[in-house]
Amino acid sequence: MADGPLDGHAFDLATAVRGGPDRWEALVDGGWGVGDRPNGGYLLALATRAALQAVDQPHPIAVSAHFVAPPVAGPAELAVTRLRAGRSLSTTRVTLVQEQRPRLEALVSAGTLDLNGTPAWQRAPEPPALPPVAECISGRPELPDGVRVGLLDHVDIRIDPATTGWATGSPSGRLEMRGWVRFRDGRGADPLGLLQMVDALPPASFELGIQAWAPTVELTVYVRGLPAPGWLACVVRGQLWQDGWFDEEAEVWDAGGHLVAQSRQLAGARPPRSTADPS
Amino acid sequence: MADGPLDGHAFDLATAVRGGPDRWEALVDGGWGVGDRPNGGYLLALATRAALQAVDQPHPIAVSAHFVAPPVAGPAELAVTRLRAGRSLSTTRVTLVQEQRPRLEALVSAGTLDLNGTPAWQRAPEPPALPPVAECISGRPELPDGVRVGLLDHVDIRIDPATTGWATGSPSGRLEMRGWVRFRDGRGADPLGLLQMVDALPPASFELGIQAWAPTVELTVYVRGLPAPGWLACVVRGQLWQDGWFDEEAEVWDAGGHLVAQSRQLAGARPPRSTADPS
Repeated sequence: MADGPLDGHAFDLATAVRGGPDRWEALVDGGWGVGDRPNGGYLLALATRAALQAVDQPHPIAVSAHFVAPPVAGPAELAVTRLRAGRSLSTTRVTLVQEQRPRLEALVSAGTLDLNGTPAWQRAPEPPALPPVAECISGRPELPDGVRVGLLDHVDIRIDPATTGWATGSPSGRLEMRGWVRFRDGRGADPLGLLQMVDALPPASFELGIQAWAPTVELTVYVRGLPAPGWLACVVRGQLWQDGWFDEEAEVWDAGGHLVAQSRQLAGARPPRSTADPS
Repeated sequence: MADGPLDGHAFDLATAVRGGPDRWEALVDGGWGVGDRPNGGYLLALATRAALQAVDQPHPIAVSAHFVAPPVAGPAELAVTRLRAGRSLSTTRVTLVQEQRPRLEALVSAGTLDLNGTPAWQRAPEPPALPPVAECISGRPELPDGVRVGLLDHVDIRIDPATTGWATGSPSGRLEMRGWVRFRDGRGADPLGLLQMVDALPPASFELGIQAWAPTVELTVYVRGLPAPGWLACVVRGQLWQDGWFDEEAEVWDAGGHLVAQSRQLAGARPPRSTADPS
Protein backbone atom coordinates (compact mmCIF):
# COMPACT_ATOMS: atom_id res chain seq x y z
CA MET A 1 0.00 0.00 0.00
CA ALA A 2 1.43 3.33 -1.05
CA ASP A 3 -0.40 5.71 1.23
CA GLY A 4 2.02 8.24 2.66
CA PRO A 5 4.02 11.09 1.23
CA LEU A 6 7.29 9.50 2.27
CA ASP A 7 7.38 6.61 -0.16
CA GLY A 8 8.26 8.91 -3.02
CA HIS A 9 5.48 8.17 -5.46
CA ALA A 10 4.72 11.24 -7.56
CA PHE A 11 1.02 11.33 -6.59
CA ASP A 12 1.84 11.30 -2.89
CA LEU A 13 4.44 14.02 -3.28
CA ALA A 14 2.02 16.16 -5.30
CA THR A 15 -0.77 15.76 -2.73
CA ALA A 16 1.40 16.14 0.40
CA VAL A 17 0.09 18.48 3.08
CA ARG A 18 1.88 19.91 6.09
CA GLY A 19 0.62 21.42 9.33
CA GLY A 20 -2.82 20.84 10.71
CA PRO A 21 -5.09 20.08 12.32
CA ASP A 22 -7.18 23.04 11.07
CA ARG A 23 -4.85 24.72 8.59
CA TRP A 24 -2.66 22.80 6.21
CA GLU A 25 -0.14 23.99 3.69
CA ALA A 26 0.28 22.43 0.28
CA LEU A 27 1.91 23.11 -3.05
CA VAL A 28 -0.43 22.75 -6.01
CA ASP A 29 1.76 20.94 -8.54
CA GLY A 30 1.49 22.49 -12.01
CA GLY A 31 2.48 19.16 -13.53
CA TRP A 32 -0.85 17.50 -12.72
CA GLY A 33 -3.10 19.14 -15.24
CA VAL A 34 -3.65 20.45 -18.72
CA GLY A 35 -1.71 23.56 -19.66
CA ASP A 36 -1.66 25.72 -16.55
CA ARG A 37 -4.91 24.28 -15.16
CA PRO A 38 -4.54 21.67 -12.42
CA ASN A 39 -6.76 18.62 -12.96
CA GLY A 40 -9.97 18.51 -10.93
CA GLY A 41 -9.45 14.98 -9.70
CA TYR A 42 -5.94 15.87 -8.56
CA LEU A 43 -7.26 18.88 -6.62
CA LEU A 44 -9.97 16.74 -5.06
CA ALA A 45 -7.36 14.24 -3.91
CA LEU A 46 -5.19 17.03 -2.48
CA ALA A 47 -8.09 18.46 -0.47
CA THR A 48 -9.12 14.99 0.67
CA ARG A 49 -5.59 14.20 1.85
CA ALA A 50 -5.89 17.06 4.33
CA ALA A 51 -9.33 15.84 5.43
CA LEU A 52 -8.07 12.28 6.05
CA GLN A 53 -5.10 13.53 8.03
CA ALA A 54 -7.36 15.73 10.15
CA VAL A 55 -9.66 12.89 11.22
CA ASP A 56 -8.89 9.37 12.27
CA GLN A 57 -10.33 7.61 9.22
CA PRO A 58 -8.34 5.93 6.46
CA HIS A 59 -10.59 6.11 3.38
CA PRO A 60 -12.73 8.69 1.62
CA ILE A 61 -16.24 7.25 1.17
CA ALA A 62 -18.14 10.20 -0.33
CA VAL A 63 -16.46 13.39 -1.50
CA SER A 64 -18.29 16.38 -3.04
CA ALA A 65 -16.61 19.51 -4.31
CA HIS A 66 -17.62 22.78 -5.91
CA PHE A 67 -14.94 24.50 -7.97
CA VAL A 68 -15.35 28.20 -7.27
CA ALA A 69 -12.25 29.69 -8.95
CA PRO A 70 -9.50 28.06 -11.03
CA PRO A 71 -6.62 27.08 -8.76
CA VAL A 72 -3.10 27.77 -9.99
CA ALA A 73 0.24 26.09 -9.49
CA GLY A 74 1.91 27.20 -6.29
CA PRO A 75 1.29 27.49 -2.55
CA ALA A 76 -2.18 26.85 -1.17
CA GLU A 77 -3.77 26.73 2.23
CA LEU A 78 -6.30 24.05 3.15
CA ALA A 79 -8.69 25.11 5.90
CA VAL A 80 -10.25 22.06 7.54
CA THR A 81 -13.38 22.03 9.71
CA ARG A 82 -14.57 18.83 11.36
CA LEU A 83 -18.35 18.52 11.09
CA ARG A 84 -18.83 15.00 12.46
CA ALA A 85 -16.45 12.61 14.16
CA GLY A 86 -18.20 9.25 14.24
CA ARG A 87 -17.09 5.69 14.66
CA SER A 88 -18.09 4.66 11.16
CA LEU A 89 -18.02 8.03 9.38
CA SER A 90 -16.32 11.36 9.91
CA THR A 91 -17.24 14.37 7.82
CA THR A 92 -14.94 17.26 7.13
CA ARG A 93 -15.11 20.50 5.16
CA VAL A 94 -11.98 21.55 3.28
CA THR A 95 -11.51 24.94 1.62
CA LEU A 96 -8.56 25.26 -0.74
CA VAL A 97 -7.46 28.89 -0.59
CA GLN A 98 -4.94 30.69 -2.76
CA GLU A 99 -4.21 34.40 -2.45
CA GLN A 100 -6.95 34.77 0.20
CA ARG A 101 -9.52 33.46 -2.26
CA PRO A 102 -11.40 30.15 -2.00
CA ARG A 103 -10.74 28.06 -5.13
CA LEU A 104 -12.32 24.76 -4.23
CA GLU A 105 -14.57 23.66 -1.40
CA ALA A 106 -14.92 19.98 -0.62
CA LEU A 107 -17.01 17.96 1.81
CA VAL A 108 -15.40 14.64 2.72
CA SER A 109 -17.17 11.79 4.51
CA ALA A 110 -14.48 9.28 5.45
CA GLY A 111 -14.49 5.85 7.04
CA THR A 112 -13.05 2.38 6.61
CA LEU A 113 -13.76 0.36 3.49
CA ASP A 114 -14.01 -3.38 3.90
CA LEU A 115 -10.92 -5.17 2.62
CA ASN A 116 -13.04 -8.09 1.47
CA GLY A 117 -16.15 -6.22 0.44
CA THR A 118 -18.43 -8.20 -1.83
CA PRO A 119 -21.60 -6.96 -3.50
CA ALA A 120 -24.85 -7.83 -1.74
CA TRP A 121 -26.61 -6.74 -4.94
CA GLN A 122 -25.30 -5.21 -8.14
CA ARG A 123 -27.13 -4.10 -11.26
CA ALA A 124 -24.30 -5.00 -13.63
CA PRO A 125 -22.21 -7.74 -12.07
CA GLU A 126 -19.70 -7.74 -14.91
CA PRO A 127 -17.26 -4.93 -15.64
CA PRO A 128 -17.80 -3.07 -18.92
CA ALA A 129 -16.33 -4.61 -22.06
CA LEU A 130 -13.26 -2.64 -23.09
CA PRO A 131 -10.75 -3.63 -25.77
CA PRO A 132 -7.47 -4.99 -24.33
CA VAL A 133 -4.99 -2.35 -23.17
CA ALA A 134 -2.72 -3.10 -26.14
CA GLU A 135 -5.51 -2.22 -28.56
CA CYS A 136 -6.27 1.09 -26.87
CA ILE A 137 -4.68 4.42 -27.67
CA SER A 138 -2.29 6.29 -25.43
CA GLY A 139 -3.30 9.74 -24.29
CA ARG A 140 -2.01 12.63 -26.43
CA PRO A 141 0.53 14.64 -24.47
CA GLU A 142 -0.37 17.74 -26.49
CA LEU A 143 -3.72 19.17 -27.54
CA PRO A 144 -4.27 20.49 -31.08
CA ASP A 145 -3.71 24.04 -29.87
CA GLY A 146 -0.28 23.08 -28.53
CA VAL A 147 -1.32 22.92 -24.89
CA ARG A 148 0.67 20.32 -22.95
CA VAL A 149 -1.15 17.66 -20.94
CA GLY A 150 1.21 17.32 -17.97
CA LEU A 151 -1.18 14.93 -16.25
CA LEU A 152 -0.15 12.26 -18.74
CA ASP A 153 3.41 12.34 -17.38
CA HIS A 154 1.92 10.85 -14.21
CA VAL A 155 -1.19 8.96 -15.30
CA ASP A 156 -0.99 6.41 -18.08
CA ILE A 157 -4.27 6.43 -19.98
CA ARG A 158 -5.22 4.10 -22.83
CA ILE A 159 -8.39 5.17 -24.56
CA ASP A 160 -10.87 2.83 -26.21
CA PRO A 161 -10.54 3.55 -29.96
CA ALA A 162 -14.35 3.82 -30.10
CA THR A 163 -14.07 7.08 -28.12
CA THR A 164 -11.03 8.67 -29.78
CA GLY A 165 -12.86 10.11 -32.78
CA TRP A 166 -12.17 13.60 -31.40
CA ALA A 167 -8.45 13.08 -32.03
CA THR A 168 -8.94 12.45 -35.74
CA GLY A 169 -11.69 14.95 -36.45
CA SER A 170 -14.52 12.42 -36.23
CA PRO A 171 -16.06 12.72 -32.78
CA SER A 172 -18.84 10.24 -32.11
CA GLY A 173 -21.29 12.97 -31.13
CA ARG A 174 -22.02 11.19 -27.84
CA LEU A 175 -21.02 12.04 -24.26
CA GLU A 176 -18.81 8.98 -23.89
CA MET A 177 -15.22 8.25 -22.97
CA ARG A 178 -13.72 4.89 -22.02
CA GLY A 179 -10.27 3.65 -21.24
CA TRP A 180 -7.72 2.09 -18.95
CA VAL A 181 -5.89 4.17 -16.36
CA ARG A 182 -3.03 3.68 -13.89
CA PHE A 183 -0.26 5.67 -12.29
CA ARG A 184 2.90 5.59 -14.42
CA ASP A 185 5.28 5.02 -11.52
CA GLY A 186 3.62 1.85 -10.29
CA ARG A 187 1.75 3.41 -7.39
CA GLY A 188 -1.40 1.49 -6.59
CA ALA A 189 -4.72 3.27 -6.93
CA ASP A 190 -5.83 3.29 -3.33
CA PRO A 191 -9.06 5.15 -2.44
CA LEU A 192 -7.27 8.52 -2.56
CA GLY A 193 -5.84 7.63 -5.96
CA LEU A 194 -9.32 6.78 -7.23
CA LEU A 195 -10.31 10.43 -6.72
CA GLN A 196 -7.69 11.24 -9.34
CA MET A 197 -8.64 8.39 -11.64
CA VAL A 198 -12.33 9.28 -12.03
CA ASP A 199 -11.20 12.50 -13.72
CA ALA A 200 -8.15 11.32 -15.66
CA LEU A 201 -9.65 10.65 -19.09
CA PRO A 202 -10.32 13.55 -21.49
CA PRO A 203 -13.70 15.23 -20.94
CA ALA A 204 -16.55 13.32 -22.57
CA SER A 205 -17.42 16.63 -24.26
CA PHE A 206 -14.43 16.04 -26.59
CA GLU A 207 -16.63 13.46 -28.30
CA LEU A 208 -19.23 16.17 -28.89
CA GLY A 209 -16.59 17.91 -31.00
CA ILE A 210 -15.65 20.43 -28.30
CA GLN A 211 -11.92 20.08 -27.72
CA ALA A 212 -11.71 22.73 -25.06
CA TRP A 213 -11.29 22.89 -21.32
CA ALA A 214 -14.54 21.79 -19.66
CA PRO A 215 -14.69 23.74 -16.39
CA THR A 216 -16.13 21.60 -13.60
CA VAL A 217 -18.82 23.19 -11.43
CA GLU A 218 -19.37 20.22 -9.14
CA LEU A 219 -17.73 16.81 -8.76
CA THR A 220 -18.86 14.03 -6.43
CA VAL A 221 -17.07 10.71 -5.96
CA TYR A 222 -18.21 7.63 -4.06
CA VAL A 223 -15.44 5.15 -3.32
CA ARG A 224 -17.08 1.73 -3.17
CA GLY A 225 -14.18 -0.62 -2.61
CA LEU A 226 -10.44 -1.10 -2.24
CA PRO A 227 -9.03 -1.59 -5.74
CA ALA A 228 -6.91 -4.59 -6.67
CA PRO A 229 -3.51 -3.84 -8.22
CA GLY A 230 -3.39 -3.35 -11.96
CA TRP A 231 -5.09 -1.36 -14.68
CA LEU A 232 -8.41 0.29 -13.84
CA ALA A 233 -11.22 0.36 -16.39
CA CYS A 234 -12.85 3.77 -16.52
CA VAL A 235 -16.19 4.24 -18.29
CA VAL A 236 -17.63 7.73 -18.64
CA ARG A 237 -21.05 8.67 -19.95
CA GLY A 238 -23.23 11.74 -19.90
CA GLN A 239 -26.97 12.13 -20.20
CA LEU A 240 -27.66 15.73 -21.26
CA TRP A 241 -25.86 18.69 -22.80
CA GLN A 242 -28.01 21.79 -22.53
CA ASP A 243 -27.49 25.55 -22.11
CA GLY A 244 -23.72 25.06 -22.01
CA TRP A 245 -23.74 22.45 -19.23
CA PHE A 246 -23.27 18.70 -19.38
CA ASP A 247 -23.23 15.91 -16.81
CA GLU A 248 -20.63 13.16 -16.81
CA GLU A 249 -20.80 9.93 -14.81
CA ALA A 250 -17.70 7.78 -14.38
CA GLU A 251 -17.45 4.22 -13.14
CA VAL A 252 -14.08 2.76 -12.24
CA TRP A 253 -13.67 -1.02 -12.15
CA ASP A 254 -10.55 -2.75 -10.85
CA ALA A 255 -8.59 -5.62 -12.36
CA GLY A 256 -10.53 -8.05 -10.18
CA GLY A 257 -13.78 -7.03 -11.84
CA HIS A 258 -15.13 -4.95 -8.95
CA LEU A 259 -16.79 -1.56 -9.15
CA VAL A 260 -14.54 0.56 -6.92
CA ALA A 261 -15.62 4.15 -7.63
CA GLN A 262 -18.52 6.14 -9.04
CA SER A 263 -18.39 9.81 -9.85
CA ARG A 264 -20.59 12.47 -11.35
CA GLN A 265 -19.75 15.97 -12.42
CA LEU A 266 -21.48 18.97 -13.94
CA ALA A 267 -19.21 20.85 -16.31
CA GLY A 268 -19.37 23.56 -18.91
CA ALA A 269 -19.10 23.14 -22.68
CA ARG A 270 -19.94 25.82 -25.20
CA PRO A 271 -20.50 24.87 -28.83
CA PRO A 272 -17.50 25.76 -31.01
CA ARG A 273 -17.95 28.79 -33.24
CA SER A 274 -17.07 26.71 -36.27
CA THR A 275 -16.40 23.05 -36.94
CA ALA A 276 -13.30 21.94 -35.08
CA ASP A 277 -10.19 21.97 -37.23
CA PRO A 278 -8.26 18.79 -36.45
CA SER A 279 -5.16 19.84 -38.41
CA MET B 1 -44.84 30.70 -10.53
CA ALA B 2 -44.97 30.00 -6.82
CA ASP B 3 -41.57 31.17 -5.65
CA GLY B 4 -41.90 33.09 -2.41
CA PRO B 5 -42.95 32.22 1.12
CA LEU B 6 -45.84 34.66 0.95
CA ASP B 7 -48.07 32.76 -1.44
CA GLY B 8 -49.03 30.31 1.23
CA HIS B 9 -48.11 27.04 -0.38
CA ALA B 10 -47.12 24.48 2.23
CA PHE B 11 -43.65 23.88 0.75
CA ASP B 12 -42.83 27.58 0.81
CA LEU B 13 -44.03 27.94 4.38
CA ALA B 14 -42.03 24.88 5.46
CA THR B 15 -38.85 26.19 3.80
CA ALA B 16 -39.20 29.84 4.83
CA VAL B 17 -36.09 31.49 6.25
CA ARG B 18 -35.78 34.79 8.09
CA GLY B 19 -32.82 37.06 8.74
CA GLY B 20 -29.64 36.97 6.72
CA PRO B 21 -27.43 37.66 5.02
CA ASP B 22 -25.05 35.36 6.92
CA ARG B 23 -27.32 33.82 9.57
CA TRP B 24 -30.85 32.74 8.86
CA GLU B 25 -33.49 31.32 11.14
CA ALA B 26 -35.84 28.58 10.10
CA LEU B 27 -38.25 26.12 11.59
CA VAL B 28 -37.69 22.53 10.51
CA ASP B 29 -41.24 21.29 9.91
CA GLY B 30 -41.82 17.84 11.43
CA GLY B 31 -44.58 17.23 8.90
CA TRP B 32 -42.18 16.86 5.97
CA GLY B 33 -40.71 13.48 6.71
CA VAL B 34 -41.15 9.94 7.89
CA GLY B 35 -41.90 9.50 11.58
CA ASP B 36 -39.80 12.10 13.35
CA ARG B 37 -37.13 12.22 10.64
CA PRO B 38 -37.37 15.16 8.24
CA ASN B 39 -36.96 14.14 4.60
CA GLY B 40 -33.54 14.72 3.04
CA GLY B 41 -34.89 16.48 -0.04
CA TYR B 42 -36.94 18.81 2.14
CA LEU B 43 -33.88 19.70 4.22
CA LEU B 44 -31.85 20.27 1.07
CA ALA B 45 -34.52 22.66 -0.21
CA LEU B 46 -34.61 24.50 3.12
CA ALA B 47 -30.85 25.01 3.11
CA THR B 48 -30.91 26.04 -0.54
CA ARG B 49 -33.65 28.60 0.12
CA ALA B 50 -31.24 30.42 2.44
CA ALA B 51 -28.46 30.19 -0.16
CA LEU B 52 -30.65 31.67 -2.92
CA GLN B 53 -31.79 34.50 -0.68
CA ALA B 54 -28.18 35.27 0.26
CA VAL B 55 -26.98 35.66 -3.34
CA ASP B 56 -28.59 37.34 -6.28
CA GLN B 57 -29.38 34.21 -8.29
CA PRO B 58 -32.79 32.66 -8.83
CA HIS B 59 -32.12 28.94 -9.40
CA PRO B 60 -30.06 26.19 -7.81
CA ILE B 61 -27.94 24.55 -10.54
CA ALA B 62 -25.81 22.10 -8.54
CA VAL B 63 -26.40 21.33 -4.86
CA SER B 64 -24.35 18.86 -2.80
CA ALA B 65 -24.99 18.01 0.82
CA HIS B 66 -23.53 15.77 3.48
CA PHE B 67 -25.89 14.76 6.28
CA VAL B 68 -23.80 14.81 9.43
CA ALA B 69 -26.43 14.34 12.16
CA PRO B 70 -30.19 13.72 11.95
CA PRO B 71 -32.03 17.07 12.10
CA VAL B 72 -35.14 17.25 14.24
CA ALA B 73 -38.34 19.24 14.03
CA GLY B 74 -37.95 22.69 15.51
CA PRO B 75 -35.82 25.80 15.29
CA ALA B 76 -32.66 25.76 13.20
CA GLU B 77 -30.00 28.23 12.24
CA LEU B 78 -28.61 28.36 8.71
CA ALA B 79 -25.11 29.80 8.51
CA VAL B 80 -24.37 31.02 4.99
CA THR B 81 -20.93 31.76 3.55
CA ARG B 82 -20.55 33.13 0.04
CA LEU B 83 -17.68 31.44 -1.78
CA ARG B 84 -18.12 32.91 -5.25
CA ALA B 85 -20.32 35.67 -6.57
CA GLY B 86 -20.19 35.44 -10.35
CA ARG B 87 -22.37 36.67 -13.16
CA SER B 88 -23.38 33.21 -14.28
CA LEU B 89 -22.82 31.23 -11.07
CA SER B 90 -22.66 32.01 -7.38
CA THR B 91 -21.56 29.39 -4.89
CA THR B 92 -22.59 29.35 -1.27
CA ARG B 93 -21.97 27.11 1.72
CA VAL B 94 -24.88 26.52 4.09
CA THR B 95 -24.60 24.82 7.47
CA LEU B 96 -27.86 23.80 9.14
CA VAL B 97 -27.25 23.95 12.86
CA GLN B 98 -29.52 22.77 15.69
CA GLU B 99 -28.49 22.91 19.33
CA GLN B 100 -25.02 24.19 18.38
CA ARG B 101 -24.43 21.09 16.30
CA PRO B 102 -24.11 20.95 12.48
CA ARG B 103 -26.75 18.61 11.06
CA LEU B 104 -26.42 19.18 7.35
CA GLU B 105 -23.85 20.97 5.25
CA ALA B 106 -24.69 21.98 1.70
CA LEU B 107 -22.78 23.59 -1.15
CA VAL B 108 -25.05 25.44 -3.56
CA SER B 109 -24.01 26.71 -6.99
CA ALA B 110 -26.83 28.91 -8.24
CA GLY B 111 -27.53 30.77 -11.45
CA THR B 112 -30.27 31.33 -14.00
CA LEU B 113 -31.76 28.45 -15.92
CA ASP B 114 -32.88 29.15 -19.48
CA LEU B 115 -36.66 29.41 -19.76
CA ASN B 116 -36.54 27.85 -23.20
CA GLY B 117 -33.65 25.48 -22.74
CA THR B 118 -33.48 22.73 -25.32
CA PRO B 119 -31.09 19.81 -25.35
CA ALA B 120 -28.04 20.22 -27.59
CA TRP B 121 -27.48 16.49 -27.12
CA GLN B 122 -29.24 13.90 -24.99
CA ARG B 123 -28.58 10.20 -24.53
CA ALA B 124 -32.24 9.27 -24.03
CA PRO B 125 -34.40 11.86 -25.78
CA GLU B 126 -37.64 10.26 -24.57
CA PRO B 127 -38.81 10.24 -20.96
CA PRO B 128 -38.96 6.84 -19.29
CA ALA B 129 -42.06 4.75 -19.90
CA LEU B 130 -44.23 4.79 -16.78
CA PRO B 131 -47.79 3.47 -16.47
CA PRO B 132 -50.41 6.24 -16.47
CA VAL B 133 -50.94 7.99 -13.13
CA ALA B 134 -54.32 6.28 -12.69
CA GLU B 135 -52.65 2.85 -12.89
CA CYS B 136 -50.03 3.72 -10.29
CA ILE B 137 -50.33 3.23 -6.55
CA SER B 138 -50.64 6.02 -4.01
CA GLY B 139 -47.96 6.25 -1.36
CA ARG B 140 -48.77 4.47 1.92
CA PRO B 141 -49.24 7.03 4.70
CA GLU B 142 -48.10 4.47 7.25
CA LEU B 143 -45.18 2.03 7.26
CA PRO B 144 -45.66 -1.57 8.45
CA ASP B 145 -44.20 -0.66 11.84
CA GLY B 146 -46.87 2.03 12.27
CA VAL B 147 -44.60 4.96 11.49
CA ARG B 148 -46.48 7.81 9.80
CA VAL B 149 -45.21 9.22 6.50
CA GLY B 150 -46.09 12.90 6.97
CA LEU B 151 -44.36 13.79 3.72
CA LEU B 152 -47.30 12.24 1.88
CA ASP B 153 -49.62 14.89 3.31
CA HIS B 154 -47.71 17.35 1.16
CA VAL B 155 -46.34 15.35 -1.77
CA ASP B 156 -48.65 13.20 -3.83
CA ILE B 157 -46.73 10.15 -5.06
CA ARG B 158 -48.04 7.45 -7.36
CA ILE B 159 -45.73 4.48 -7.58
CA ASP B 160 -45.28 2.28 -10.63
CA PRO B 161 -46.81 -1.10 -9.61
CA ALA B 162 -43.63 -2.76 -10.91
CA THR B 163 -41.75 -1.23 -7.95
CA THR B 164 -44.30 -1.71 -5.15
CA GLY B 165 -43.45 -5.34 -4.40
CA TRP B 166 -42.07 -4.22 -1.04
CA ALA B 167 -45.58 -3.24 0.07
CA THR B 168 -46.95 -6.76 -0.49
CA GLY B 169 -44.00 -8.79 0.71
CA SER B 170 -42.59 -9.43 -2.77
CA PRO B 171 -39.79 -6.92 -3.33
CA SER B 172 -38.23 -7.13 -6.78
CA GLY B 173 -34.73 -7.51 -5.36
CA ARG B 174 -33.48 -4.61 -7.48
CA LEU B 175 -32.49 -1.06 -6.52
CA GLU B 176 -35.38 0.52 -8.43
CA MET B 177 -38.25 2.87 -7.68
CA ARG B 178 -40.41 4.71 -10.17
CA GLY B 179 -43.44 6.94 -9.95
CA TRP B 180 -45.22 10.23 -10.47
CA VAL B 181 -44.81 13.07 -7.99
CA ARG B 182 -46.36 16.51 -7.42
CA PHE B 183 -47.19 18.85 -4.57
CA ARG B 184 -50.69 18.17 -3.22
CA ASP B 185 -51.68 21.82 -2.95
CA GLY B 186 -51.07 22.64 -6.59
CA ARG B 187 -47.72 24.35 -6.12
CA GLY B 188 -45.57 24.04 -9.22
CA ALA B 189 -42.29 22.21 -8.92
CA ASP B 190 -39.89 25.06 -9.60
CA PRO B 191 -36.15 24.37 -9.28
CA LEU B 192 -36.33 24.57 -5.48
CA GLY B 193 -39.25 22.16 -5.48
CA LEU B 194 -37.24 19.72 -7.60
CA LEU B 195 -34.78 19.36 -4.71
CA GLN B 196 -37.68 17.92 -2.73
CA MET B 197 -38.96 15.78 -5.58
CA VAL B 198 -35.73 13.86 -6.25
CA ASP B 199 -36.06 12.40 -2.75
CA ALA B 200 -39.84 11.98 -2.45
CA LEU B 201 -40.28 8.33 -3.45
CA PRO B 202 -39.55 5.55 -0.94
CA PRO B 203 -35.88 4.51 -0.84
CA ALA B 204 -34.97 2.12 -3.63
CA SER B 205 -33.64 -0.14 -0.88
CA PHE B 206 -37.28 -1.01 -0.04
CA GLU B 207 -37.20 -3.14 -3.19
CA LEU B 208 -34.22 -5.02 -1.74
CA GLY B 209 -36.56 -6.09 1.06
CA ILE B 210 -35.23 -3.55 3.56
CA GLN B 211 -38.20 -1.51 4.74
CA ALA B 212 -36.22 0.70 7.07
CA TRP B 213 -34.98 4.25 7.14
CA ALA B 214 -32.07 4.59 4.70
CA PRO B 215 -29.84 7.29 6.21
CA THR B 216 -28.37 9.50 3.50
CA VAL B 217 -24.65 10.23 3.71
CA GLU B 218 -24.42 12.44 0.63
CA LEU B 219 -26.97 13.82 -1.82
CA THR B 220 -26.19 15.81 -4.95
CA VAL B 221 -28.79 17.34 -7.27
CA TYR B 222 -28.30 18.97 -10.66
CA VAL B 223 -31.26 21.03 -11.83
CA ARG B 224 -31.20 20.91 -15.62
CA GLY B 225 -34.30 22.87 -16.62
CA LEU B 226 -37.42 24.72 -15.55
CA PRO B 227 -40.19 22.15 -15.19
CA ALA B 228 -43.51 22.50 -17.00
CA PRO B 229 -46.63 22.35 -14.82
CA GLY B 230 -48.06 18.93 -14.07
CA TRP B 231 -46.97 15.54 -12.80
CA LEU B 232 -43.27 14.79 -12.70
CA ALA B 233 -41.97 11.36 -13.63
CA CYS B 234 -39.32 10.20 -11.20
CA VAL B 235 -37.12 7.22 -12.01
CA VAL B 236 -34.69 5.92 -9.41
CA ARG B 237 -32.05 3.25 -9.87
CA GLY B 238 -29.02 2.08 -7.98
CA GLN B 239 -25.93 0.27 -9.13
CA LEU B 240 -24.37 -1.38 -6.07
CA TRP B 241 -25.29 -2.39 -2.54
CA GLN B 242 -22.18 -3.37 -0.61
CA ASP B 243 -20.96 -3.21 2.99
CA GLY B 244 -24.20 -1.58 4.09
CA TRP B 245 -24.07 1.25 1.51
CA PHE B 246 -26.01 1.74 -1.69
CA ASP B 247 -26.11 4.41 -4.38
CA GLU B 248 -29.34 5.74 -5.80
CA GLU B 249 -29.66 7.88 -8.94
CA ALA B 250 -32.89 9.75 -9.65
CA GLU B 251 -33.98 11.39 -12.88
CA VAL B 252 -36.96 13.73 -12.89
CA TRP B 253 -38.78 14.41 -16.17
CA ASP B 254 -41.49 17.04 -16.54
CA ALA B 255 -44.86 16.76 -18.25
CA GLY B 256 -43.35 18.25 -21.40
CA GLY B 257 -40.96 15.32 -21.69
CA HIS B 258 -37.84 17.18 -20.55
CA LEU B 259 -35.21 15.95 -18.12
CA VAL B 260 -35.30 18.63 -15.41
CA ALA B 261 -33.28 17.15 -12.55
CA GLN B 262 -30.68 14.48 -11.84
CA SER B 263 -29.65 13.37 -8.40
CA ARG B 264 -27.40 10.82 -6.78
CA GLN B 265 -27.15 9.78 -3.17
CA LEU B 266 -25.16 7.37 -1.06
CA ALA B 267 -27.24 5.91 1.73
CA GLY B 268 -27.09 3.15 4.30
CA ALA B 269 -29.02 -0.12 4.27
CA ARG B 270 -28.29 -3.07 6.52
CA PRO B 271 -29.72 -6.48 5.66
CA PRO B 272 -32.71 -7.37 7.84
CA ARG B 273 -32.07 -9.91 10.58
CA SER B 274 -34.89 -12.03 9.27
CA THR B 275 -37.17 -11.93 6.26
CA ALA B 276 -39.39 -8.87 6.39
CA ASP B 277 -42.81 -9.60 7.83
CA PRO B 278 -45.31 -7.75 5.68
CA SER B 279 -48.25 -8.38 8.00
